[in-house]
Amino acid sequence: MSSHDESRFAAEVYGARLERAAELARNAHLDALLCTPGSDLQFLIGSRAQSFERLTCLVVPASGETPSVVIPKMELAQLKGSAAGELGLQVVDWVDGVDPYRLVRNVLNAGARVAVTEVMPALHLLPIADQFGSLPVSATPLLRELRMRKDPSEIEALRRAGAAIDRVHARMGEFLRPGRTEAEVGADIAAALVEEGHTEAEFVIVGSGPHGADPHHMVSARVIEPDDVVVIDIGGPVEPGYFSDSTRTYVLGEPSAEVAEQFSVLERAQAAAVAAVRPGVTAESIDAAARDVLAAAGLADYFVHRTGHGIGLSVHEEPYIVSGNDIALQQGMAFSIEPGIYFPGQWGARIEDIVIVTEDGRESVNNRPHGLTRL
Amino acid sequence: MSSHDESRFAAEVYGARLERAAELARNAHLDALLCTPGSDLQFLIGSRAQSFERLTCLVVPASGETPSVVIPKMELAQLKGSAAGELGLQVVDWVDGVDPYRLVRNVLNAGARVAVTEVMPALHLLPIADQFGSLPVSATPLLRELRMRKDPSEIEALRRAGAAIDRVHARMGEFLRPGRTEAEVGADIAAALVEEGHTEAEFVIVGSGPHGADPHHMVSARVIEPDDVVVIDIGGPVEPGYFSDSTRTYVLGEPSAEVAEQFSVLERAQAAAVAAVRPGVTAESIDAAARDVLAAAGLADYFVHRTGHGIGLSVHEEPYIVSGNDIALQQGMAFSIEPGIYFPGQWGARIEDIVIVTEDGRESVNNRPHGLTRL
Repeated sequence: MSSHDESRFAAEVYGARLERAAELARNAHLDALLCTPGSDLQFLIGSRAQSFERLTCLVVPASGETPSVVIPKMELAQLKGSAAGELGLQVVDWVDGVDPYRLVRNVLNAGARVAVTEVMPALHLLPIADQFGSLPVSATPLLRELRMRKDPSEIEALRRAGAAIDRVHARMGEFLRPGRTEAEVGADIAAALVEEGHTEAEFVIVGSGPHGADPHHMVSARVIEPDDVVVIDIGGPVEPGYFSDSTRTYVLGEPSAEVAEQFSVLERAQAAAVAAVRPGVTAESIDAAARDVLAAAGLADYFVHRTGHGIGLSVHEEPYIVSGNDIALQQGMAFSIEPGIYFPGQWGARIEDIVIVTEDGRESVNNRPHGLTRL
Repeated sequence: MSSHDESRFAAEVYGARLERAAELARNAHLDALLCTPGSDLQFLIGSRAQSFERLTCLVVPASGETPSVVIPKMELAQLKGSAAGELGLQVVDWVDGVDPYRLVRNVLNAGARVAVTEVMPALHLLPIADQFGSLPVSATPLLRELRMRKDPSEIEALRRAGAAIDRVHARMGEFLRPGRTEAEVGADIAAALVEEGHTEAEFVIVGSGPHGADPHHMVSARVIEPDDVVVIDIGGPVEPGYFSDSTRTYVLGEPSAEVAEQFSVLERAQAAAVAAVRPGVTAESIDAAARDVLAAAGLADYFVHRTGHGIGLSVHEEPYIVSGNDIALQQGMAFSIEPGIYFPGQWGARIEDIVIVTEDGRESVNNRPHGLTRL
């Protein structure tokens, strides 16, 4: 496509999303959706504006009238560089010293009922609530209807992200060796993410030995030892902003019989959860599918987090694969399946794929071997 | 100091800040302050926790009772690694599937009036408002009383940050040459920030030629030309998290007489604003000091943003040096003075120093020459 066709295509996609968002707001008896910078804003108008303390806010009236963007005059150039320029949005610019919250109210009515993007900081949310005289509601229950089910172009982006992170895992032997620190290994992996097609390395977890038992460990100065089990959980965005996220667990020497046995249970748990994915089943049933396998082997207490999270323009988004979430899976939903087992002070393991719900089952965008990979 | 002495020192500093925050909340007739991850949390307990969708929240009761931290069980290790471990905080951990907002309410009372950190996202703020049955207020008017006036250790950190960024500007001739792209120059500058003592490069603006006229331009694929005027605005954190932020404008060839003349007005405007800084004068009077010099030369319309922003554990914080802000400057306040002139489609320039209010004037932590530096 020519650049002109591309922006017309983009304007059509975003235009349709804006119309659908307005309709959902109308059905929920709201007067408008308000989005400050973040993945909702990117989803609706393609803008990757960064949030600073100066207010940038998309206002989508439920009435179907033309949406507005309230934006600092000095950031207008950025907006025009995005697909937002093609959408015919009404632009309300402001300069330092002006009250931008009043401008948001002026676009609507004083008593309007508004929903706000979940990333809007208190800095902006509280003065907006003041302007409208009531507490806004979260826009997520509306926008997740649009964002959870990925369209074909989004699925294609998630596949590209999956293939890119698989190529990084395939190269792990280049990076992960005894005698190197987690931080050194992590820096090499971060560079490989970019080499393999990511815009940047969003997160790199190298959890070696006892650090593998902390699910949120990043990297440290710990020197990797010859027999370590190492959890590698990595990801980043590929154009136009969709994320990869994949975990594999490696072992540098010969694993003990106990480690091998416990890991094989985890492998079965992850596979069971993946196999359970199809339209109509609940998110929590997928969590249970993994948990039940671990419980049957006496390992339930070592699996200390939910099984997964939705993914798209955000690393973590709806639907969450967690106990208590009875949402029914639908074709096009994309999320991680990532059970883990954690033995504090000793070792840990996790296996993670991103799967997409298909018409009658699921597709995994990550296809590296799931076993305890010996390097 | 030994590591033990250091953590006792830290616990004393943070303990005093927590007590003072509780006192300010009491005086404001609030029941508690609530802080999710961000610079307020770091200021109060030294924790650099990252915010994810799982709630981490410090609860500081106005009563002076022991503060609590509501935190995901899987992130406990991170908390214990910070000074928070020394503070005797009450820890309320939770696992996926539990409602963490109810845990926050349980620490206080159902009808408690709470103030929240300005970075708290709607994702957490709205359910917290639901729990307490009322809209929280912003904690910033309270916390800024503590954060705006830097103590001697904070001033020392800002001086180290200033010296580090000055060293990067001193090396600009290594990086900025015709024929290179802004992105190539920016990547070298980012590496130099780290080499000169920053933990990371937080922002690197290389605004060459017409890009200099966009105050929020970052870098691009534009090839720098032999006669370009180039705005370089750079900064990042130094340990334990205080930011540098300094702008200089460079010229690669011989500037035209008009450019030289207009730049000299900007130089006088910046110097006038710096010279006006002393205890007791208002923030807006500093903004006016810069603006008046530009206006007298007919350049007022080309200065499209405020004169400056406070700086510390955040790049941008109170006090803002902007029209309408009548706060009186006090000893220990730290902020940028950064007027600019922008000629759309042609060129732009900006000069920025971080200054700290002293007993009878000001100290600049940035001391590179202010003129249009020829490389």
